Amino acid sequence: MRIDSRSTRTLYPRPSLDGFVILDQTLLPHKVRWLDVFTLEQAAYAIRHMQVRGAPLIGTTAAYGLAVAMRHNPSDSNLAYACKLLADTRPTAVNLIWSIERMRKHLSQIEVSKRAVAAWNEAAAIAEEDVQQNYSIGQHGLACLRKHLTQPEHRLHVMTHCNAGWLATVDWGTALAPVYAARDAGTHLHVWVSETRPRNQGLLTAWELSEEQIPHTLVADNAAGLLLQRGLIDVVIVGADRIAANGDVANKVGTYLKALACAAHGVPFYVAAPRSTLDFACAKGADIPIENRSGDELRFVLGLDDDKQIRQLRQYPEIAATHNPAFDVTPAHLVTGIITERGVCPASQDGLANMYPELAHV
Amino acid sequence: MRIDSRSTRTLYPRPSLDGFVILDQTLLPHKVRWLDVFTLEQAAYAIRHMQVRGAPLIGTTAAYGLAVAMRHNPSDSNLAYACKLLADTRPTAVNLIWSIERMRKHLSQIEVSKRAVAAWNEAAAIAEEDVQQNYSIGQHGLACLRKHLTQPEHRLHVMTHCNAGWLATVDWGTALAPVYAARDAGTHLHVWVSETRPRNQGLLTAWELSEEQIPHTLVADNAAGLLLQRGLIDVVIVGADRIAANGDVANKVGTYLKALACAAHGVPFYVAAPRSTLDFACAKGADIPIENRSGDELRFVLGLDDDKQIRQLRQYPEIAATHNPAFDVTPAHLVTGIITERGVCPASQDGLANMYPELAHV
Repeated sequence: MRIDSRSTRTLYPRPSLDGFVILDQTLLPHKVRWLDVFTLEQAAYAIRHMQVRGAPLIGTTAAYGLAVAMRHNPSDSNLAYACKLLADTRPTAVNLIWSIERMRKHLSQIEVSKRAVAAWNEAAAIAEEDVQQNYSIGQHGLACLRKHLTQPEHRLHVMTHCNAGWLATVDWGTALAPVYAARDAGTHLHVWVSETRPRNQGLLTAWELSEEQIPHTLVADNAAGLLLQRGLIDVVIVGADRIAANGDVANKVGTYLKALACAAHGVPFYVAAPRSTLDFACAKGADIPIENRSGDELRFVLGLDDDKQIRQLRQYPEIAATHNPAFDVTPAHLVTGIITERGVCPASQDGLANMYPELAHV
Repeated sequence: MRIDSRSTRTLYPRPSLDGFVILDQTLLPHKVRWLDVFTLEQAAYAIRHMQVRGAPLIGTTAAYGLAVAMRHNPSDSNLAYACKLLADTRPTAVNLIWSIERMRKHLSQIEVSKRAVAAWNEAAAIAEEDVQQNYSIGQHGLACLRKHLTQPEHRLHVMTHCNAGWLATVDWGTALAPVYAARDAGTHLHVWVSETRPRNQGLLTAWELSEEQIPHTLVADNAAGLLLQRGLIDVVIVGADRIAANGDVANKVGTYLKALACAAHGVPFYVAAPRSTLDFACAKGADIPIENRSGDELRFVLGLDDDKQIRQLRQYPEIAATHNPAFDVTPAHLVTGIITERGVCPASQDGLANMYPELAHV
């Protein structure tokens, strides 16, 4: 699928600007299907039902969702309605709110008749910034990885969780951007891919790494402790859905357990995220809302088509009660560093404020 | 299925002593099917392919497997052959080796013509001891649980991992024995059940607890850190497949991550196991062999019949590489206490040696 290093965009506007195109991630890795999104409601559906996923990609999809909405009706009331509808799709990723707020502020200063064009331009700017920021994250992350590669001829063993590759962004990815940068720089790599129950996004990472021809091994989430204990992992890099002002990190559920195991074995634990993931308005991790999703996801097998999916659900027993939080919070003290588009900073109030002084004072 | 508190035996000899009967756990929780085992090879198959599972039940099944083998051919050479065949089925659970060694020693002292009867009697003794030991584990564990129930009218929230209930033993279970004892003593309980990828034995625990009408909630393994962080778990109890002389515990993969999270949040982490799980010949956890199972298990959905299972496997993509260790090792310092049939002891060389002086000096 990846023809060259610049052809992995997961989202692009239709040339006629009557809609945009997304890669449907609910069918991956079994089937590559591109979906046209022509309406605001389709955009909201795509985010809520995880046809697009990954904090940066959710934010960009919301921006294009607003562009589509403005094309149909650029009024103030429709702008407010569209922002509300999109913001309510998923609660944890702050990139979603960041992107919607940026679009709303920009568009509200523009007269109604020019909003549609302005919305497409601003969405395109958000998408382009995502690509550039992720590229920069890759370069800064590469410097981190090099520190842990004491013998250049050796293979570097990286573990990640969930999917924070180019599938989770417009391009490059966050957690995987340093992996691609290292590969491009000639480093021998191997990636441990954790399954990431219940939605099995590890299969997306395995698929993405296959496309990139990077050696990787799929493991159950439960295996991370043993692998770290046995010295089989040199470094862990994950993405983030929201980073609080004090450096606490909300990311896919299971991240926290990996961070604890890294601390126990002295293995560096990095979080890679662009500035849209930072939420200075959120003082600490405990203030981050954690999305609870349907317990049916515990009976979910990724990538079957709808009919098969339904049969799959029927084959599973009805369990009396389930609880399915989609994210967890890793406290700042377990994070070795946050890899941003500006460089690597400590996961702390001061570290983040020094890196983003203009945000810290807002 | 459970008609009264003494009818949950997972294994029993056929009245004619021409074989024994097991509950096929590969079809649970979808279907309750009992299997007749008439040959040594069937017994070995049942252990290897996890028709029976759980360290204590594996040990008892091996004992009855030897009884079946002695019925067909009680010679010295067949005894040696049968012991070897059964011992090679699974490497981590020491109960298997303990049970086979006990049978071998006993039978080798008995003349060939009387071995068949002696084997049935010794297997029955092993099964009966398992039931009695687990009952005692329940009573000692009850005392532990009561310490953490500061306000008797409150509900006690217990988390377990994998299945260490009566399905994993001949009766009562190990980790769940204290839960049943507490329930019988009138304590209000709720059990957090972790899915236990890749084999999903959490579904067995959910089924078992449903049979017992004990409130429970199924969660992804990844959720344990968040639940502990949020104070939703009062105590964690797991079983064990082997405990080294220094108190390190091998148990189902994922146990170690839970133990780390318990330590981070000051939540007690207990291991419940009978003396057959102790291996004084094994100095420390790093010496315990960890079974690697087929990576196909990552594509496995528990409880489908064989045809459906095969179709299931085909629906999953072929992942280039998988790694599937079935167990991990929790270091002794993370274990609050080991609940044995004799009482609760510290997870340490001294603690175990004081509890089992006759084993420590062997």
